[in-house]
Formats: sequence, C-alpha cells, structure tokens
Amino acid sequence: MRVNIGILGCGCVGSGVLKILKSKAETIRNRTGVEINVRRILYRSRRPAQELVPPGAALTQAYGDLLDDGEIDILVELIGGLSPAHEIVSAALGNGTSVVTANKAILAGYLPEYRRIAAESGANLEFEGAVAGSIPIMAAIKSSFVADDFSSAYGILNGTANYVLTRMSEGMPFSDALALAQKRGFAEADPAFDVSGRDAAQKLAILAMLIFNTGISGDLHAEGITDITADDLAYARDLGCTVKLIAKASLAGGRLGAGVYPALLPFSSALAHINNENNAVYLRSDNSGDALLFGKGAGELPTASAVISDVVRIALRLKSQSAKPPVSIFKQIPLIDPLELSSRFYIRYSVLDKVGILARIAGVLGNHNVSIAGVWQKNTVAGVVSLVMTTHSARVRDMFDSVRIIDSSNDLVRGKSLVLRIDDLEG
Amino acid sequence: MRVNIGILGCGCVGSGVLKILKSKAETIRNRTGVEINVRRILYRSRRPAQELVPPGAALTQAYGDLLDDGEIDILVELIGGLSPAHEIVSAALGNGTSVVTANKAILAGYLPEYRRIAAESGANLEFEGAVAGSIPIMAAIKSSFVADDFSSAYGILNGTANYVLTRMSEGMPFSDALALAQKRGFAEADPAFDVSGRDAAQKLAILAMLIFNTGISGDLHAEGITDITADDLAYARDLGCTVKLIAKASLAGGRLGAGVYPALLPFSSALAHINNENNAVYLRSDNSGDALLFGKGAGELPTASAVISDVVRIALRLKSQSAKPPVSIFKQIPLIDPLELSSRFYIRYSVLDKVGILARIAGVLGNHNVSIAGVWQKNTVAGVVSLVMTTHSARVRDMFDSVRIIDSSNDLVRGKSLVLRIDDLEG
Repeated sequence: MRVNIGILGCGCVGSGVLKILKSKAETIRNRTGVEINVRRILYRSRRPAQELVPPGAALTQAYGDLLDDGEIDILVELIGGLSPAHEIVSAALGNGTSVVTANKAILAGYLPEYRRIAAESGANLEFEGAVAGSIPIMAAIKSSFVADDFSSAYGILNGTANYVLTRMSEGMPFSDALALAQKRGFAEADPAFDVSGRDAAQKLAILAMLIFNTGISGDLHAEGITDITADDLAYARDLGCTVKLIAKASLAGGRLGAGVYPALLPFSSALAHINNENNAVYLRSDNSGDALLFGKGAGELPTASAVISDVVRIALRLKSQSAKPPVSIFKQIPLIDPLELSSRFYIRYSVLDKVGILARIAGVLGNHNVSIAGVWQKNTVAGVVSLVMTTHSARVRDMFDSVRIIDSSNDLVRGKSLVLRIDDLEG
Repeated sequence: MRVNIGILGCGCVGSGVLKILKSKAETIRNRTGVEINVRRILYRSRRPAQELVPPGAALTQAYGDLLDDGEIDILVELIGGLSPAHEIVSAALGNGTSVVTANKAILAGYLPEYRRIAAESGANLEFEGAVAGSIPIMAAIKSSFVADDFSSAYGILNGTANYVLTRMSEGMPFSDALALAQKRGFAEADPAFDVSGRDAAQKLAILAMLIFNTGISGDLHAEGITDITADDLAYARDLGCTVKLIAKASLAGGRLGAGVYPALLPFSSALAHINNENNAVYLRSDNSGDALLFGKGAGELPTASAVISDVVRIALRLKSQSAKPPVSIFKQIPLIDPLELSSRFYIRYSVLDKVGILARIAGVLGNHNVSIAGVWQKNTVAGVVSLVMTTHSARVRDMFDSVRIIDSSNDLVRGKSLVLRIDDLEG
C-alpha cells in the first residue's frame, strides 16, 4: 500500500527522515507493506541536499502548497516552534488530513484542541518523536498498556540537562558542560530552554495528558539546573547520590501533581545511571507495575525513526479503512500546587564563617516546620563557607520560604542558597 | 467492535486475563473500541472461580471444544509447555484462527513453523507475554522500530535468577534465595529451568528470531548460576561489579552469537541496578541507538496485561479488514559457536594453601593464551584458599579448557572453579 506524505521542515529531523526513507524504503515495505511516497517537501532557510530528495518530490517554500495538495494523506510537521506550525497543524487536521509531528511546543499548548478537531474531522494525529525521541513511549501507552490505569510517570526528559549534569558529575563546571552540549549538537537553539527545565515541562505536559487523559493548560512548574555547581555533584556523591533533572507527574487524591525539578537520586537506582544525552521514563500502572523505557531522547536519526513509525502507523490505519480507535476528549483533572507537595531536601548555603550561624538557620527552619537530617561544612573560600544540609520530609513552600528568609539575611549568608529535592522512590 | 476469544488454560496468567477483562472491560472499549467477548474457557485441574467467569462463557475441559468452535476469532493459549499446546496452536493457525500465546517453550521450538502456517492461512500470531512479561518489547520491535536494523539484544530475561542474585548480593546463600523466590511465586514449577539459564535461553531465541528475522533451531548455549556463592557477589563488589544472568544475541560478520551466561557488570551500568524479579532488555539498532526496556518480567497481571494488548492488536486488524502486515519467512543466519567468542573473565579457584600454586595456574593459563589482569587471595577455610582472578580478554574455549585442566589437578585445587564473564559494554 502506498501513502503520500508532505514533509514540513528540513532541519535536523527532516533530513533524518529523508535519509531513512532513502536507505530503508525496502525494509519498511517488506516489514509493514507500506510504501511511503514523498510528494512535497517544504524547506525554510536551507534547501535539502539533492541526493536526499526522493524522485518526484516537489520542493517548495510556501506552506500553502502542502495544505492545498489534495493528494497528501499525511502531513509530517517538523518545523518546530509555535507559529506557523500551530496554524498549519490546525488547518490540516480540520481538513481531515492526518498529521505526524515531533513538535512539543504546539502539543503542550494545543493537544486538547487538536484532539477535538481530529475527532470531528476523522484525521489521525501521532507524535512519538515529540517526547523522548526514539523511545516508543507513546506506542507503549496507546497500544501496549491498553488495560492499565497509570498512577505516575517519572523520568529524565531533557537530554541537554542530563548531558550537562553528567559532565558536572565528573567535575566539569556548568558553563563548560553546557558549551560542550551545544558543540555536540544536543542543546536547543536557545539552551536556556533546556537548562531551565521548560523543555522537559512541555514534554511532561504531553505525557501527563496522554496517560491521565486530561487537558493541561499553561506551563507546568519548572525548576532548572543553572545554580548547581560541580561541587554540589561532589557533595551529592558523598551522600551516595547523583543529581538529575527530574520530570514527574502523579495522581494523588484525584488531583494531578506535575513538575520538573533537579533532585538527588541514590546510586542504587537505575535512573541514577542514565547518563549523557539519554532520556528515560518510568511508567507506573496498576497491572504492569513499573516499566522503564530508556533511549536516545533526541537527535536526527532517533527522532526521525520515531516519526517514520508514526507515518507507518497511520498509513496502516488509513489504507485498511480501519475503524479509527476512539478519540477520547480529555477530562480536566485539577492540578496540585507544586509548592504544596513534600520532599526531603538538600540545601547548600553560602554562609559567613561566624559563630552561631547554624543555630540561626536552624531556628528559621524550625519556624517553618523543616527538620534537619544532617549538616556538613564543606570548603571555605574568602570567609564564605559552603554549608550542606539535608532535611527530613518538608513542604516545598515551607522549604522555599525558609530559604528566602535566610538568603535575605546579610549577616548570615553571602549569595543565593541552592535547594534540591532528594528523591528516594522512582514512581 | 466485538471480538470472540477462547481462553486455553486458567492458571496464573489465565486468571489474570479474566480479572483484567472483568475490571477493565469498559476501559478497553473506551480506549480502543474493542469489546472482548469470552466464548469458551478451557481449564485443566482447577475450575476458575465463578466470579471471574464472564456471563455467557462456557467452561470446558476438552480442547476440541475450542478448536471446533467456528465463532472464536482469537485463541488465547495459556496452558504452557510443549504438548498439547503445540498441537493446538498449530491446528488453530492452520484453520485460520488467530492465536495469542505467552508460551515461550513452543515459540522457541516452533516459531519459524508457526510463521509459515500463519502466512498461508492468514491467521495472526502475537506473543508479547512470552518474553519479559509486561515489557512491550515485541510491540517496540514490530511497530516502533520499523525502519531500524538491529545489531544486538542484551539483557536480563529471567526474573527468578535475577531475584536470587539480588538476594545473594545482600549476603543470602543461593539455596535460601531460591527458596524465597519459590515462596514469592516467581520460580517456574521446576526452578532448575530458571537457574540453569534455559528459561532465559528460550526467551532469547524468540527475541533473536524476531529482531534478526532468522530461524533458530535447537537450544541456545546456556550457563546457569547454581555454582555462584554469596562470596562471589561480595568479591564482585570489591571489583566495582555485581553479577547478573545475561542473555545476549548479536550479529558479527554475518553470523549470530547468542547465549545466556552469568556475568560481572560494573555498578556504573544501569543494568547492574535492575534488581529483584525485574527483566530488562537493551536493543541496539542503527537509527535509534541503544534503547532499554525494563519492567516486570512475569507475574499474573503484568503478563495478562501483555496478553490483552495482543488480543486488542489482533482484534483491530481482524475487524477492520486491515491488510495484514506481510509475514516474512525467516532466513537462516548461521550461529557462532559460543565457545569461539571472547570476553574478560572472573575466576574463583579453590586452591590448596601451598607454595607455587599461582605459578602453576599461571602456567596453564599462559599455555591457553589467557592473560591475568589481577589476583586476590580471599578467605581460607580448612587449608583451602579462595583465589579470585580476573583476566584480560580471552577466548571462552581457552578459558574453559584451562580451568578444566586446573580443576583436574588434585595437587592444586579442591573443588570446581567458577568462571564468570566480565561485561563492560551493554549492547
């Protein structure tokens, strides 16, 4: 069976799709019976290399050429960003044209709307490449865990931040590690989006909408890794832990807690050993218990591989007059304020080397119901001591409030304190 | 859409399927549009609890009742073992009845034959539950990595052995750990099948046939964990490693190396932290790189969840008059003799406490081209010293030959030496 596609965008992932279609056309046809025919390719700044353009595919720079082409069965949107991707995907779905996208920004913002449009028009929408690259997490949720109710998703969803933290665990400073990630091609155009946790928060929103069948509007809570130093990784190691940027969504009492934050993970957990640019996601569900999926979170060929699996998936549906699986319109689970959640904490204070400092800090913490588990004095530089503290479980809001008060006391501290969660459980 | 199924076998997994169908019928229908109707249930020794039997489902003890029922769309084979499961599955597929099975024994033995029969009759065959329980590894291979060529699969495929090794890493003796696994319900009826590596070898054969599209006949090479002691786990820890029962299949020079063996894994690898009854599989492929799937390898509900996902998968195909994906008849990749492969090794000799022993052992190793990396004298009991040795990379056959010679020298050793591989790379 033959399916006509249009490819929007010829950057990293778009080129990857063309490369795989060129080298694996026969493999795909033999395995699935699907012959993928590229009718049109939209490029923006850089014309794709001629040897990657399949015979018969028309190149264009006008979006309308693809939207108006009545022969395209599946539009593959790989331009990224909100606009014009959102308008194009909305229009295509509205026309009944199926869409494959790897665009996390539009999905985090508009997935509930896209589902409504697709349910009305009968179009298909797949987006395996948008979350955790080649890891077949959407397929697992939609096709494998069909009888499972999920209670949480927990993992590492940003490859750049994970790469940076891995290098920092080896002693490299943050800025050098980030520069290296950019050089290696992992980082987003604006790396601030990676290291602030906002990229992971978009992916988490998509994942949470899928597994909990709920709409999420607005940005999820995100804390980044920019204030973490290589020293913190060394101190964490002394505690038997490493630091990872964690994305977590879980149901509690009919409400959804979801957010991104850096956390200490014990070396005894598998997730502590997911290094470099890799992603990993735990799914916890009632029948299957904990399942972990790990793999390349981004990159040209891994993401392109996911995109092509989506194209095949839709092609098999379209060409068989298959009854489309029902599209459920999201319900709306109320969000838990992330500050109301509780956690154990790691805090690094930069305190003055004076008598009585710890007593005053302990006093502020006590007033906020934060109980100290351990304190270690680390290196002293120019009269400023790094004081590392771990706490028993405390409310996030209380922890942040206490640190705000401590940080504003110029006779106690120099510089901002760093607050990291300590996660014991995966799930 | 409604699909009629017959369930063969009402043991652990069969009961799990009935439980999930009872509690999740509406969930499955809402998500997939499939209504699963149980027409007949075959039980052998124990009649299923009445509250689990769906209204309208007929109970029987005669296999023929299911084979002769012209209304059954999918036969779900959960009786296990070779006979009569093989005869029933062959007959059903031959009649054009689709089959879901979680039976690793018949698949390891007859998968190439089943594919030929199914290709002729048009029947579907799915078996997600047969390998690594709820881990959606078959779905990943068949639906997600459609454009990927695999180079290896590597992982932990037996939950009992992994549970036993986990307990041993905490100091528990082998026999106690195995008894605990049996008590917890993880072990096969005959636990020797688990701890000898033969169970993992069956699953590896199925996995290797799928990812390399090759037939495999006969049992794969399997070394078990019965000679490993808690001391070995402690010695491994001194080397920065734990011990896991590894199943590995990989292509090299157009030939397939495949086998099961216990190996030391460094704690820096994620796989070293896959504990208890869990399974995990790395898949290495050209586009996607390394992907790891981890989860419950067995158990009532996890395996039942996988079985139900297969039923839904086939139902969607059957009910949509979908063009069946092409069934490729396996080619035949030649097997590499596992003894011809190379590895680093850990060896524990039980040597007499005499002068010159190490020199003589080193001499035998040298004659077999095995080069020593490190030697440690461990505890001495009644004049017998545990001598732990690591080697540089050596041929498996040379290693085994040298140890056979050493073990047969009564003036050198007391008791059998233990040989474990040391794996550095996952994949």
